[in-house]
Amino acid sequence: MSAIPQNLPLRNDLIGEEPYGAPQLDVPVCLNVNENPYQPDPAVCEAIARRVRDIAPTLNRYPDREHIELRQAFSDYLARESNTRLDVDELWGANGSNEIMLQLFQAFGGPGRTALGADPTYSMYPEYARDTFTGWQLAHRKADFTLDIEALIEQIHAVGPSMVLLTSPNNPTGTPLPMDEIERVLEVCETAEVAGANAGVHPIVVIDEAYVEFRKSGTESAVSLIKAHPNLAVSRTMSKAFAFAGARVGYLAASKGIIDCVRIVRMPYHLSAVTQAAALAAFEHTDEQLSRVEHLRETREATAAWLETQTYKGEPLDVAESGSNFLLFGGHFDKRDEIFDELLKRGVLIRVVGPAGWLRVCMGTDEEMARFREALTQVLRIVEAA
Amino acid sequence: MSAIPQNLPLRNDLIGEEPYGAPQLDVPVCLNVNENPYQPDPAVCEAIARRVRDIAPTLNRYPDREHIELRQAFSDYLARESNTRLDVDELWGANGSNEIMLQLFQAFGGPGRTALGADPTYSMYPEYARDTFTGWQLAHRKADFTLDIEALIEQIHAVGPSMVLLTSPNNPTGTPLPMDEIERVLEVCETAEVAGANAGVHPIVVIDEAYVEFRKSGTESAVSLIKAHPNLAVSRTMSKAFAFAGARVGYLAASKGIIDCVRIVRMPYHLSAVTQAAALAAFEHTDEQLSRVEHLRETREATAAWLETQTYKGEPLDVAESGSNFLLFGGHFDKRDEIFDELLKRGVLIRVVGPAGWLRVCMGTDEEMARFREALTQVLRIVEAA
Repeated sequence: MSAIPQNLPLRNDLIGEEPYGAPQLDVPVCLNVNENPYQPDPAVCEAIARRVRDIAPTLNRYPDREHIELRQAFSDYLARESNTRLDVDELWGANGSNEIMLQLFQAFGGPGRTALGADPTYSMYPEYARDTFTGWQLAHRKADFTLDIEALIEQIHAVGPSMVLLTSPNNPTGTPLPMDEIERVLEVCETAEVAGANAGVHPIVVIDEAYVEFRKSGTESAVSLIKAHPNLAVSRTMSKAFAFAGARVGYLAASKGIIDCVRIVRMPYHLSAVTQAAALAAFEHTDEQLSRVEHLRETREATAAWLETQTYKGEPLDVAESGSNFLLFGGHFDKRDEIFDELLKRGVLIRVVGPAGWLRVCMGTDEEMARFREALTQVLRIVEAA
Repeated sequence: MSAIPQNLPLRNDLIGEEPYGAPQLDVPVCLNVNENPYQPDPAVCEAIARRVRDIAPTLNRYPDREHIELRQAFSDYLARESNTRLDVDELWGANGSNEIMLQLFQAFGGPGRTALGADPTYSMYPEYARDTFTGWQLAHRKADFTLDIEALIEQIHAVGPSMVLLTSPNNPTGTPLPMDEIERVLEVCETAEVAGANAGVHPIVVIDEAYVEFRKSGTESAVSLIKAHPNLAVSRTMSKAFAFAGARVGYLAASKGIIDCVRIVRMPYHLSAVTQAAALAAFEHTDEQLSRVEHLRETREATAAWLETQTYKGEPLDVAESGSNFLLFGGHFDKRDEIFDELLKRGVLIRVVGPAGWLRVCMGTDEEMARFREALTQVLRIVEAA
């Protein structure tokens, strides 16, 4: 990006900042942004086109600002996926879970407020904080990337955040977040104080479940805790397991009180009639859209096992436990940028993200993973010898 | 809206606030939110469905974050509509001009910064300011709602805004904004100081052209000033003349420097692949989409002339000069809420907005306008007699 003219009144704290995002490169094997590698079924594509055609004659009119039909579809989906039936007014949609998170920060953050996360975590969180003038603080995680729950609770009391923001599973580490830890944090936050706020105001807990459909089967989602915890907000997305990243549909499951707070700051008509129609069509085909999730879980387990058999400079690779569709691996890569570059030369795009010494790869198709393995095998030998 | 639980950490300045927006009522004649009343042509609907079907197999992947093809379409459209050819990096799209405005406020506003408008003006502006912690100040307009340019310039020097925000034409008054006044403000802002900013930083001027396609034919758009004025940002939308409100596509025309500032604060992948496809399809049919604009202009002129022949309490109605698809009328309605309610009882929904004593009506189809006239004729007699 070329320099921005200095006479423009760009906010001082944005001077020198770059737009967020992984490089968008035209590469044969893209394993960098944790997409579902499997295209929607032709039947799903037809349904999307049909639904969009049906509403097209109404596009001169504004969409349903409350997107009631779509919120009902979120409810139906969660009833099935998380075995929890929520009401329409406990659900809310937006243009990707990015916008959900931004709306939460707009409603509950701001100058003098702080959001608290657990490091390492998703690299967009500091941007939501920056964009809403919210302070951003981090508790540390243990060496294996699990939550250090006592350290976190200590930080909650020390910082007085208005929002505690946890990822389940975590990104970029993939680390699962046990339900009893979520409940512990919820209980602490029910009485914890918010710095600078009136007495009797307590933090909300935001659980970011972008990748939660990839969790170990038989385990629960934080959605099941909403009815008992009005201070809980669970962010979800259709971008990952649901294979719908291009349509930009995120959603929030939370108490009606939290949803009502978000409604105050949402842009009117933020969710287009076309987006609503496309999402409804995809939810008609939930089985097809989710049909590859089990296989991607198996791919993750197989890839983790294979990575653990690989070595770099004589040491086996570390692989973080993952409940997601990606793996953080390495742990002792002293030249991770070189490994990234050499993989890219071989047509395989992964991501340099997370703590020093690690790299992240997301699960592709069987063919893509074979190319990843082949390329990585070569690259590790080349880089360690260089 | 029911009360929000007091233990939630909602921002103090949002307590008691309501979500923005006109009531969404199921009424036969909707003349309240300045939509184009004519549905897209079947050919346009087919094109939208076809384009969406074409990209549906890619929806597992994230969209083009830079939406280059759509920005080229904005350029082609403005070359034709405003006789000005801009480069792709002088254009930017978002989910409605709402999001364009929010992004401008996020980049150029914030605590300690102020945006300056001219009262009365669009009622969303204070919400963008509130959502970004930006101060919001107003210069006054003349009694006929035209800009008081000397008062505005005085305010620019007194306030030191980072953004001067003018509507062309204005909403809710419809008042056209002459190009020489825009140029005068641009020149003043080229050297005006921004309070609290470094020396050499000057305000940007944002011209909101949501309704500009309805301007008197032969007059120019502020887009024609962009190449000469790097401190100018022009906000546009497909929602109004273009009859595409349901698809939520706004865009920004400005210097590359301003666009680059906005790119820093945009959410990654804010514009879905479905939205991009639908907008490209609509731009393929620009003639059809704009085909009713001339008729709506004629409707405005005929409706204004008719309104001026009507009386309330013995006085003829005032009608503000409009370069838009709506009219602000009345001027001396001492019971505008009652007039609104009585019209609604007769199936005609207009808008209570703007200075006391006025009501706003947007231009519908011929049949809708006939129903509006018939209802208003009855209602004025009933309310003045009550």
